[in-house]
Amino acid sequence: MNHQDNPAPLVLRENAGGLVTLRLNRPLQFNALSEAMLAALQAELDIIAQQPQVRCVVLAAEGKAFCAGHDLREMQATRDLAYYKTLFAQCSRVMRWIQELPVPVIARVHGVATAAGCQLVASCDLAVAGASARFAVSGINVGLFCATPSVALSRNVSAKRAFEMLVTGRFIDASTAADWGLVNTAVPDEALDEQVALLAQSIMDKSPAAVRHGKAMFYRQRQMALADAYAYAGEVMAKNMMEEDADEGITAFLEKRSPNWRA
Amino acid sequence: MNHQDNPAPLVLRENAGGLVTLRLNRPLQFNALSEAMLAALQAELDIIAQQPQVRCVVLAAEGKAFCAGHDLREMQATRDLAYYKTLFAQCSRVMRWIQELPVPVIARVHGVATAAGCQLVASCDLAVAGASARFAVSGINVGLFCATPSVALSRNVSAKRAFEMLVTGRFIDASTAADWGLVNTAVPDEALDEQVALLAQSIMDKSPAAVRHGKAMFYRQRQMALADAYAYAGEVMAKNMMEEDADEGITAFLEKRSPNWRA
Amino acid sequence: MNHQDNPAPLVLRENAGGLVTLRLNRPLQFNALSEAMLAALQAELDIIAQQPQVRCVVLAAEGKAFCAGHDLREMQATRDLAYYKTLFAQCSRVMRWIQELPVPVIARVHGVATAAGCQLVASCDLAVAGASARFAVSGINVGLFCATPSVALSRNVSAKRAFEMLVTGRFIDASTAADWGLVNTAVPDEALDEQVALLAQSIMDKSPAAVRHGKAMFYRQRQMALADAYAYAGEVMAKNMMEEDADEGITAFLEKRSPNWRA
Repeated sequence: MNHQDNPAPLVLRENAGGLVTLRLNRPLQFNALSEAMLAALQAELDIIAQQPQVRCVVLAAEGKAFCAGHDLREMQATRDLAYYKTLFAQCSRVMRWIQELPVPVIARVHGVATAAGCQLVASCDLAVAGASARFAVSGINVGLFCATPSVALSRNVSAKRAFEMLVTGRFIDASTAADWGLVNTAVPDEALDEQVALLAQSIMDKSPAAVRHGKAMFYRQRQMALADAYAYAGEVMAKNMMEEDADEGITAFLEKRSPNWRA
Repeated sequence: MNHQDNPAPLVLRENAGGLVTLRLNRPLQFNALSEAMLAALQAELDIIAQQPQVRCVVLAAEGKAFCAGHDLREMQATRDLAYYKTLFAQCSRVMRWIQELPVPVIARVHGVATAAGCQLVASCDLAVAGASARFAVSGINVGLFCATPSVALSRNVSAKRAFEMLVTGRFIDASTAADWGLVNTAVPDEALDEQVALLAQSIMDKSPAAVRHGKAMFYRQRQMALADAYAYAGEVMAKNMMEEDADEGITAFLEKRSPNWRA
Repeated sequence: MNHQDNPAPLVLRENAGGLVTLRLNRPLQFNALSEAMLAALQAELDIIAQQPQVRCVVLAAEGKAFCAGHDLREMQATRDLAYYKTLFAQCSRVMRWIQELPVPVIARVHGVATAAGCQLVASCDLAVAGASARFAVSGINVGLFCATPSVALSRNVSAKRAFEMLVTGRFIDASTAADWGLVNTAVPDEALDEQVALLAQSIMDKSPAAVRHGKAMFYRQRQMALADAYAYAGEVMAKNMMEEDADEGITAFLEKRSPNWRA
């Protein structure tokens, strides 16, 4: 078999109803985010953004590790400032795109999530970790402060905890990550798939329109002053009330029956 | 007795020294925030804002639930965008007013606090929950993403936790709410009143002037960049030092006696 | 001995390799931050900022307490608005300077840290507390709301927790401080020095250039909107990649050997 001509895809995609599972697929390189990997991930996110039938995304990974961050070998091969700027911009775009995506993205984390791999977890809307998962922003160990990962990390984890991880490169375990808010839950490894499936299903049981409007609104309002946030959120909520699904949902509630969403 | 002509007030008010207890009083509707309830609450807050003798407010509720959020039956009766915008603006005003009030507001939470009811807890300066209290932003279950509640929730609880509550509608219990910072403490139900009373008394033992200046400053500085926050807080603190109560408080401290506040 | 002519320095300084330990030295006044103490601390920070050989700073204290905040006796002696404004500006400058310093500052906290003393802990990048350490922003007890301390506190601790400390003046113990994110770790008192030494050593093992760029970037990006933060962090990280230490660090990693930093 000629891997050059027909390589395995860097990101595997499974569709199951409205659920898309993306699976990082460079297991021997601990799913390092090479340029090609970032491009493959961006391409999948771009496709999902155009597919209204998608309701929830799970981001998972093949092999022993979730993601070991950037591909240091590749980075080291081209020591050029413009190249690095482009690379980090490409990576930051993927991270931001996860938040820009109209549907929730759940990180399914097992094994090691380091540097931009830890950032990937922080950038997802939700995250579930197996008990054996470990997290670090470890660029500092190779003389490279995890600057872009710190953007996502410090918006999930309090200041001193984020700073300690960044300057020491220390690992935290899954239960510490849950305690600090980096992930939503830590579960036994053997319960990881079930827990992710339950969380995804819980989201897919909801009105797709309400989830979509809500996600976009959530991140936007967080960056606003309180009065502006309320003015904006009030507008969004009033529009949400006018949608068919809110009409159906509230009617169903008042009639003590389950709602039938339009989608 | 003609309830039409002389209905029970929607918000009960008790005064005890400088302590005002407001009690939501639509127990059969789980204290849902109807237009009339929001107006009654706003009216009480407006009165308190004009009463310098008030030193602390407790927000409590009658019946089995703390507050179940908006009145879905009333909302559903008028499916009109302009109406909803006005309603959410009215509600957001109440929530913001709690923070604008010159004295601390303590939520005394028992039973269920959902949607705008959970937002009410998040909007109070302090909150004490009985062990049986439960919290959710559950609009998503009826096709309505809790947009305005998310404004308050996401300023109390970290991003992934808030987002999970918003897209799943899941309940968290009192001890989880305390762990996540949504409430200050969870105590056994039978200790709830005593704990609230102790907290209120602790505040009322302080200089009223210092508490008032401090509360307004606290929320304002949080929205500023660090340098601006320090410049502003320094001005406020210098003015506080010039007040009679600071003079008395520091003198009393140096003389190893209790202070006698002016108020 | 004439203390007038040759007083003990208010801040003791020890150098050990790249590690500077500053030790507040007014033990009988619980290291209160008099004008002279603030000036001495500022002077030390100014010196450190000019010394590229310094890699990490530990802020410790002599005597029973870490720091009891402002010197109330001194403050009370000059009841003048302009004086207080200058004093709080001087104090805020010290606090901000800790963050502006190009190297990490670790608070080594034992005993009591109150008011501006608690702010000092909050203002350090990292903090390790002995089990017997206790924290409060207790100005409210003397009629003076801890306004400038609230700036640092509320950037470390969630809203309701910070507000409760500010309006009640209550103490929290070391393990609560660790749980809330005010300090990184609480350890048995007898392990405090060792834990601080380990943390400092972990930082000093890193590339000095990477740590310096990283610290400045970290606080700046936190105050930006997400897109701006990523654009800025990406620039910083690209420049970091072009440095000798990143070249050496990544090469060492790929060659499975320890790096030899330039510094």
